[in-house]
Amino acid sequence: MSKSEKELISKKFQKLFDDSGTHSPSLLTIKKELPEIDIKIDACFLSNPYATDLFMDRFKTDVIDTGLIREVLEFYPSQNNIISKNLSKTIDVPEDNIFIGNGATEIIQAIFHNFVERKVIINIPTFSPYYEFVREDTEVIFHQLKKEDNFCLDVESFCREAKESGVDTAVIINPNNPDGGYIKNSDIAYICNELRDIPNLIIDESFIHFTYEDSTYNFSSSEQLVKKYDNVIIVKSMSKDFGIAGIRAGYCVMDKQKVETLLKNGYLWNVNGLTEFFFNLYSEEKFMLEYEKVRVKYIKYTNEFIEQLKAIEKIKVYPSKANFVLVELPEQIKSQTFVKDLLIDSGIYFRSCDDKKGLEGNFVRIASRDREQNDVIVREISKYFGDVDE
Amino acid sequence: MSKSEKELISKKFQKLFDDSGTHSPSLLTIKKELPEIDIKIDACFLSNPYATDLFMDRFKTDVIDTGLIREVLEFYPSQNNIISKNLSKTIDVPEDNIFIGNGATEIIQAIFHNFVERKVIINIPTFSPYYEFVREDTEVIFHQLKKEDNFCLDVESFCREAKESGVDTAVIINPNNPDGGYIKNSDIAYICNELRDIPNLIIDESFIHFTYEDSTYNFSSSEQLVKKYDNVIIVKSMSKDFGIAGIRAGYCVMDKQKVETLLKNGYLWNVNGLTEFFFNLYSEEKFMLEYEKVRVKYIKYTNEFIEQLKAIEKIKVYPSKANFVLVELPEQIKSQTFVKDLLIDSGIYFRSCDDKKGLEGNFVRIASRDREQNDVIVREISKYFGDVDE
Repeated sequence: MSKSEKELISKKFQKLFDDSGTHSPSLLTIKKELPEIDIKIDACFLSNPYATDLFMDRFKTDVIDTGLIREVLEFYPSQNNIISKNLSKTIDVPEDNIFIGNGATEIIQAIFHNFVERKVIINIPTFSPYYEFVREDTEVIFHQLKKEDNFCLDVESFCREAKESGVDTAVIINPNNPDGGYIKNSDIAYICNELRDIPNLIIDESFIHFTYEDSTYNFSSSEQLVKKYDNVIIVKSMSKDFGIAGIRAGYCVMDKQKVETLLKNGYLWNVNGLTEFFFNLYSEEKFMLEYEKVRVKYIKYTNEFIEQLKAIEKIKVYPSKANFVLVELPEQIKSQTFVKDLLIDSGIYFRSCDDKKGLEGNFVRIASRDREQNDVIVREISKYFGDVDE
Repeated sequence: MSKSEKELISKKFQKLFDDSGTHSPSLLTIKKELPEIDIKIDACFLSNPYATDLFMDRFKTDVIDTGLIREVLEFYPSQNNIISKNLSKTIDVPEDNIFIGNGATEIIQAIFHNFVERKVIINIPTFSPYYEFVREDTEVIFHQLKKEDNFCLDVESFCREAKESGVDTAVIINPNNPDGGYIKNSDIAYICNELRDIPNLIIDESFIHFTYEDSTYNFSSSEQLVKKYDNVIIVKSMSKDFGIAGIRAGYCVMDKQKVETLLKNGYLWNVNGLTEFFFNLYSEEKFMLEYEKVRVKYIKYTNEFIEQLKAIEKIKVYPSKANFVLVELPEQIKSQTFVKDLLIDSGIYFRSCDDKKGLEGNFVRIASRDREQNDVIVREISKYFGDVDE
């Protein structure tokens, strides 16, 4: 590619980027608007590709090969509460405490429009919808995670600030996005106890399936805490752990009065036929046994990947228990330049983090993909920094 | 089937029905919960089955056979405004005036939660979400459509009541559900002019593709009126005319300030990959030429069907320009009894209307299905009323 060609593509990409607000343009958008870029690896996208393989296999045998697909696409899916009934057994939470969402985004929007009142506390850097979706009259208190602490949450300081500022809502993302910082069970228990008197304690567990506290690799959800604390709201995207972002599937565990309010207020036929199919699979023992294998396999590969990235001298990799890492680039390399270079020259798409509130410096977020792609990512980044001879 | 078996199934169905609130249980729910019923025809479901055939053909060739399906299900779909850009050309409305919805239900919810203020006027009988999704502090004025006028809207009386009661929002469904009553272009123009000073004039055109005013069978959308009146809000479900309710696809044409408010407030990644695929097809000339053929074919078959139903002496069929008719049963036959009898004995599912506000009497709504199924429906209803020898 000539230098002028590259500059032209670079400019076009910058425009797409600028038009996307606080989110990166999606892969489909880039493919449509910039067909001249040959994207080989989407390391912006946070999902377990082995789980997608598993889902696609079952989609093929159960839905396509049987001809059931027509029924799934032609007819209305079941109402929210029918799908909750199924999910209830899988996660051991009463169905009245479950709200099925059209992706976690819809759930966040529904919570913020219906339950959040005057003031909310949120750690930064974090997933932006949690402060973007607030109503105009809601004040946001930003609790800064410190770079010198590796963006690790100081739970005592967080709870103190939440109480002192008199918030009605606190938001915790576990593990956090974009850094992957994990909050241990014992710390979550501490937070729930300390903040038991505020109306809403939101814990987003969209990446919880990638976490573990010991060598069994079991993850530990806080969903059961809803039985003890009626202010706890667990938000769960299924896009990441199951690799099915295109379907839009999520759920929320919360006080049954809150579920009732949403179901009465228009969130009733909010999911599509494929979401219902997914939740049917999610309640099937055989599928979940297979899922468990690909979940652990992916965690192990991700750990290998993170170790390899750490070995690249010129970048700093922050500790993560999620399926991505926050990476700090050398001072002279702007993150958007790095992202554009790797995209255009190597076909690898990373998430530039310079739009992230509370994150000063040149940061990118790098997702773990399959083992082969992870190897390519490590090699191309090494090459970029001159660590590898071509 | 023995009498006691039938009674048991009838009781179970009644429970499902009671649990579904103001909507009938979906076909998938009945199939799951009552597998002993062999449903052959879903005449509760309002869609063009020939359009589903057409969509399924393209889904197979474009998405399944090419392997694109993985991309569609794995990755995030494009953001709302990217899909609007495509749709803009098809419907000749600027992209800034278009909001893409996860089905019309989400659009109704978004409008009622974000734009409707103190008071709304709604014709009854009608599609219940329009009064169910109102906020607690919103007053609803019900404008009764008269049985003696065949539930036809008296536009002058409607506009007078809207103005006298000082509403900020008026809702028109054209054609109306459950009766199929059509409001002519000239009457819509009258309403828009009369109510030009209220903040929101919602016109739901979810069934507009089934209407026509002359022998060309062309339908006439009010979408262009948004260019003249900034209070007009057109709501459009794609589930009915394209027979794809399981996908969840709809759009809304309205003032660009309103679109901006929704996009800023969390309605951004609200649709799934298949919805995006559908809207791509909808902007393709070849697909739309084929769609036009199945649209007109279905209208003609529906008209035949309505004539055949009218010939059944014991029932009264109200005039309809939609793909369904409102049918009044003889005084002694309760609509739920009729629905259960036809479902259990003939495998045909109708919509009982006894939960419909503003509709006193024994009414059912009967959808037009494909030509063969329509013939079966006419025969089984005739048999039920003893018009046909077995």
